[in-house]
Amino acid sequence: MKKNIIIGQSGGPTAVINGSLYGAVKRGLQESGSIGRVYGMINGIEGFLLGGCVDMGPLAENGDLERLRVTPGAYLGSCRYKLPEDLSDPIYPRIFSKFKDLDIACFFYIGGNDSMDTVSKLSRYAESVSSPLKVIGIPKTIDNDLVMTDHTPGFGSAAKYVATAVREMGLDVSGYKNTPSVTIVEIMGRHAGWLTAASALARKFPYDNPLLIYLPETVFDIETFFVQIKRALTLTPNVLVCISEGIRDASGKFICEYGGDTGTDTFGHKALAGAGKYLENLIRAREGIKVRSVELNICQRCSSACLSATDLQEAVSAGAFAVEAALSGETGKMVTFIRESDAPYVLKYGLADVNAICNAEKKVPLDWIAPNGCDVTDAFIRYALPLIQGEEDVPYKDGLPDFIYR
Amino acid sequence: MKKNIIIGQSGGPTAVINGSLYGAVKRGLQESGSIGRVYGMINGIEGFLLGGCVDMGPLAENGDLERLRVTPGAYLGSCRYKLPEDLSDPIYPRIFSKFKDLDIACFFYIGGNDSMDTVSKLSRYAESVSSPLKVIGIPKTIDNDLVMTDHTPGFGSAAKYVATAVREMGLDVSGYKNTPSVTIVEIMGRHAGWLTAASALARKFPYDNPLLIYLPETVFDIETFFVQIKRALTLTPNVLVCISEGIRDASGKFICEYGGDTGTDTFGHKALAGAGKYLENLIRAREGIKVRSVELNICQRCSSACLSATDLQEAVSAGAFAVEAALSGETGKMVTFIRESDAPYVLKYGLADVNAICNAEKKVPLDWIAPNGCDVTDAFIRYALPLIQGEEDVPYKDGLPDFIYR
Repeated sequence: MKKNIIIGQSGGPTAVINGSLYGAVKRGLQESGSIGRVYGMINGIEGFLLGGCVDMGPLAENGDLERLRVTPGAYLGSCRYKLPEDLSDPIYPRIFSKFKDLDIACFFYIGGNDSMDTVSKLSRYAESVSSPLKVIGIPKTIDNDLVMTDHTPGFGSAAKYVATAVREMGLDVSGYKNTPSVTIVEIMGRHAGWLTAASALARKFPYDNPLLIYLPETVFDIETFFVQIKRALTLTPNVLVCISEGIRDASGKFICEYGGDTGTDTFGHKALAGAGKYLENLIRAREGIKVRSVELNICQRCSSACLSATDLQEAVSAGAFAVEAALSGETGKMVTFIRESDAPYVLKYGLADVNAICNAEKKVPLDWIAPNGCDVTDAFIRYALPLIQGEEDVPYKDGLPDFIYR
Repeated sequence: MKKNIIIGQSGGPTAVINGSLYGAVKRGLQESGSIGRVYGMINGIEGFLLGGCVDMGPLAENGDLERLRVTPGAYLGSCRYKLPEDLSDPIYPRIFSKFKDLDIACFFYIGGNDSMDTVSKLSRYAESVSSPLKVIGIPKTIDNDLVMTDHTPGFGSAAKYVATAVREMGLDVSGYKNTPSVTIVEIMGRHAGWLTAASALARKFPYDNPLLIYLPETVFDIETFFVQIKRALTLTPNVLVCISEGIRDASGKFICEYGGDTGTDTFGHKALAGAGKYLENLIRAREGIKVRSVELNICQRCSSACLSATDLQEAVSAGAFAVEAALSGETGKMVTFIRESDAPYVLKYGLADVNAICNAEKKVPLDWIAPNGCDVTDAFIRYALPLIQGEEDVPYKDGLPDFIYR
């Protein structure tokens, strides 16, 4: 008797979250002997509770599945929804009743820490009620902060975007060598500096930008920052500084929180500013130097222009591997990446207990951060470089990427 | 007796400013019968006064010229330097003496309005001292605000970047259909809304984002804005709004000025930042809705990832056409684009008196803006669509674009 499977997406989108969806759908459809329908969950577990569900089969038939592979953003829609800690909450039988209505044997959830919390709870609930449902997590986050895995799908493409943008901005700002300037680039990462660290990949020669890199893993000291900025300006007239949005001072206070304290606008509204904007204003006020700040913002997680072929292929494989794992009886696990070597880059896929993953955060190792606190070491470069390799051609129509829409 | 030529770059960089440099250098080197050396001016006329000059010949010999074609930013370095109005100022004989030292017969300046001011002054000075020097301007600006030309090199690639980023951000923000949200995207353009208007190209279906587009050509009224935002939220839960950095209210005051923090650049232009941030804070305070603002910032002018093949080819041709014009005796002119038809798109190259161009600004025609003031008409789409056509492959090395450095 054939059973159906369902796949959902959750949390912030990435450039390759649909790559994992593609991989899982395609692998599922290949198992036509044991799998009946492959469903997609609309807007994650939250939308599913409202009845959100779509049959993914037709997508494969009309050829749209290949376009799905390179379409950024969560095709199925996402949610940020935390299931109750108490497994006796009535929401659990409601969810499982919906699974039963659709004759679901396996549920796959593509997401980050919070989504793995959902995988943990649903798999534990299944066990508690002796349900045969298999629940597998497929990692996804540009933040690269999941434990038990070498890295996460989505990080490589975001890292490639960051490094490319920083290299291009470095060229842009170096146009005015007669006018010393500081450009602060604020990069996503509240608690883990992986993506900010990836800006180091932009460098092509000694003293190339970014000259300074600050991660949230170490204390950000304003006075040290000014000393380092002034020294950097003696090395090149146009200094590009990369900071993580989550840099904090010795008291643990986020630098961006000081920006929130800077005052109110004409209408008395609190002027909320990021860490980059705050430092920009500070440098202008104290040094009187030409300074600007750039927030890379959501482009860094949704740009298809800098897709890493390596990242996309791994995202697809993670989706397929999850389906294989569930079919072989695994549950309560997340697909993990196990690196066998850096050069040549060799990756194996594995599984880890999702309970050890959800609600934990993997930070950049302190020995991958330079002792002066404003750079990364070669160990980080060796780690990150394989992840941005290879380019991916996105289909174009009328001059723009031809994505797929639900 | 062979003479030499020199090419300079000025003003803000674009993705194709080096395409025009490539076109002029390559065309110059082809005229080996009449042209001796092809020089590059380091950091524009300002750097040239300090002796900045490089022979471009070796670049062609080692094959780097092809990489120059797709390298963003001003390879030669740029400047923002206004020559004195008074042509009897001693700076003019100083410049011409340097031209004479290098045996320069033609000077080409790639830039926008301010650079055309330099072309105007140097050509008028040449005439006043009966110098045979030919001075030709090659247009360049993402702002597309030069008069006497259908459009400017740099606009097409920036427009393609903006439309691509807006389409991708539209996918990103639409992931959370259960949570209504507003995303404000701030796009470059102080007085002319061409680039902001290009965001309309991102749409794929009725009521696709961006739902609202505001240009500096019309009055931005806060209360009307709120009415339009609320209406847009009834059409789609996740509204993306594109605004020009230079939107102004009925009093003529820039919206960003309400947010504070402004200064002026060398030419006395107001340094704008923060209209999007200001509106974000206002919407949050008044509506309590999920809202964020994204400033596309310098990425929109320096990204090589969204190069328009049409734009790049036109930039190259403009450079070559300038050399041909100077060799045929023209001076005090700027290369112009003359559109013969939209579909099929047919373009001719021409020349116009640079004095009619410098210090003038071409704005989006009011009849290309929808009567409700928050959209553009089909006439704009017909105008802009040909300019973003075609993709350009940039060489990659180690996972990143392999640009050329001076």
